[in-house]
Amino acid sequence: MQALRFHEFGKPQDVLKLEPLELPPLAEGEVRLKILAAPVNPADLNFIEGTYGVKPELPAVPGIEGCGEVIESRSSDLRIGDRAIMLRRAGSWATHVQLPADHLFKIPADLDPLQAAMLKVNPATAWRLLTGTGTPASGSWIVQNAANSAVGRCVIAVARELGIRTINLVRRPELIDELQALGADLVVTDDDAGMDAVKSAGAGKPALAFNCVGGESALRLMNLLAPGGIHITYGAMARRPLTVPNGLLIFKDLQLRGLWITKWIESAPKQELDEAYAKLAALMTNGSLTMPVDSTHSLESSGTALERVSAAGRDGKVLLVP
Amino acid sequence: MQALRFHEFGKPQDVLKLEPLELPPLAEGEVRLKILAAPVNPADLNFIEGTYGVKPELPAVPGIEGCGEVIESRSSDLRIGDRAIMLRRAGSWATHVQLPADHLFKIPADLDPLQAAMLKVNPATAWRLLTGTGTPASGSWIVQNAANSAVGRCVIAVARELGIRTINLVRRPELIDELQALGADLVVTDDDAGMDAVKSAGAGKPALAFNCVGGESALRLMNLLAPGGIHITYGAMARRPLTVPNGLLIFKDLQLRGLWITKWIESAPKQELDEAYAKLAALMTNGSLTMPVDSTHSLESSGTALERVSAAGRDGKVLLVP
Repeated sequence: MQALRFHEFGKPQDVLKLEPLELPPLAEGEVRLKILAAPVNPADLNFIEGTYGVKPELPAVPGIEGCGEVIESRSSDLRIGDRAIMLRRAGSWATHVQLPADHLFKIPADLDPLQAAMLKVNPATAWRLLTGTGTPASGSWIVQNAANSAVGRCVIAVARELGIRTINLVRRPELIDELQALGADLVVTDDDAGMDAVKSAGAGKPALAFNCVGGESALRLMNLLAPGGIHITYGAMARRPLTVPNGLLIFKDLQLRGLWITKWIESAPKQELDEAYAKLAALMTNGSLTMPVDSTHSLESSGTALERVSAAGRDGKVLLVP
Repeated sequence: MQALRFHEFGKPQDVLKLEPLELPPLAEGEVRLKILAAPVNPADLNFIEGTYGVKPELPAVPGIEGCGEVIESRSSDLRIGDRAIMLRRAGSWATHVQLPADHLFKIPADLDPLQAAMLKVNPATAWRLLTGTGTPASGSWIVQNAANSAVGRCVIAVARELGIRTINLVRRPELIDELQALGADLVVTDDDAGMDAVKSAGAGKPALAFNCVGGESALRLMNLLAPGGIHITYGAMARRPLTVPNGLLIFKDLQLRGLWITKWIESAPKQELDEAYAKLAALMTNGSLTMPVDSTHSLESSGTALERVSAAGRDGKVLLVP
């Protein structure tokens, strides 16, 4: 058993080391998983750099999500051979993890483990963005920026299933056709020309906006929202704060909120989590929701995996496959 | 019958004219009031300047609130001699107004008309700030900036009645004693030293923040709030937008909202309005809620009244008393 581990915060390439992993005997209610796949998420990098919302005790094993197969069980909920995803951080960048069965969600046997390994964070974020403040009526509109991101693509897929129409802002015009092919109703560039395009397209005023950029782009979403609309920030790719004109709060009655999916996963009732993940897993299994995969790497090749994450031509997630 | 009227948007001193007022015969359900008092509010000035959230058809009579005595009635709800405040804009800077009885709230006979004339906007704003997103539990804390403003003083008084404790930010340290005498639990300066004073005072983390300043001061309120807290903007004295660090939305889970009291008054069920104004009128009648009066002026002296509004040493509201 092995795990990628860091003993100090820093640049992932510098501080991560592949080390032997020793796990204690299983406690009652726990299971041990052999990891089948674990993605490299931006939050993992922040976690290693020490800039994430929570800091771990050191040394620590990164990996906020992953899919595994049960190889040992002291829970009646999961049997040897079952596959499951981790709903709590358990250090998935390892050959094995063990944790209480109620921190796992059992996935359908016919769901691709690579896809399942990406189910916990991005699809759930899209789910909560779309339903967490009250699900919009079928036929209504939402708007999002960074629509080409992993979450953005999940929003397009999940919204389609819910009958919700999407206005999608992207930085590069060459993404327009690609997202339309995915089922996006309207895709425009994230600039003034794009705002004109939204107006002339005659889309409905959205009641929900999903922001993972910040700065000017976040403000464009506020301006597109209907009066009383809700603006949810779940990321900060532009690394710039939001600027909010007072009138948008006072007279337009906008609400600004945030979403940290980890907090929902850790605090929502298990039944609510199970219902959401069952829906998302079904969409993944029938192909309605597909996360693009860029490449897979062994734990020994984590350096290559991390290089690939910041590579220019990357097209999808980078996953570790122990 | 006379009214102050403007035929074009502009500086109030330049565009306001005292002109004859002709009112049509009363329709069924309407009453005619003789105005007893009408305050000069900042929103009135914006209204005349054309910078308010809604623009009137011209010519228009300003005056978003006021108290009057019924001199003619075609409603069973109000009799001649009753006193009432206007809940809808009816142009109170006049000797008379007439409007449907359900746009009025009948006040207790023993309530000072000068005080009653200021009941509609500022006390109701304080009421909605404190109760509109769910009334905090007795003993819990809220925080506000511009605590010396008319609304700020109402917040202190209403919070006291509800058993809610207040952290109050003020720009000038000489206001600290004055607000403490009003019942403010903690008063500090709106700067870094004030933030240190809040910490060392050991006040509870507030779940609600009321912002009518914007800019740096609005951000101080965000930082003082408890995780999951609600930050409500109802004014923009600093005339600068809010700057919101992404982490306060994502990880601290703050909600930013706005309050435009006019919208509540125009859209809330009459029963909800009557219940709120009955509570506030009772507080005013028993002296728990008092709005300071700077000076009163006739309609003929509106120029003096407007000068007084922007005078340096003003201490309370300026009212027109036709």
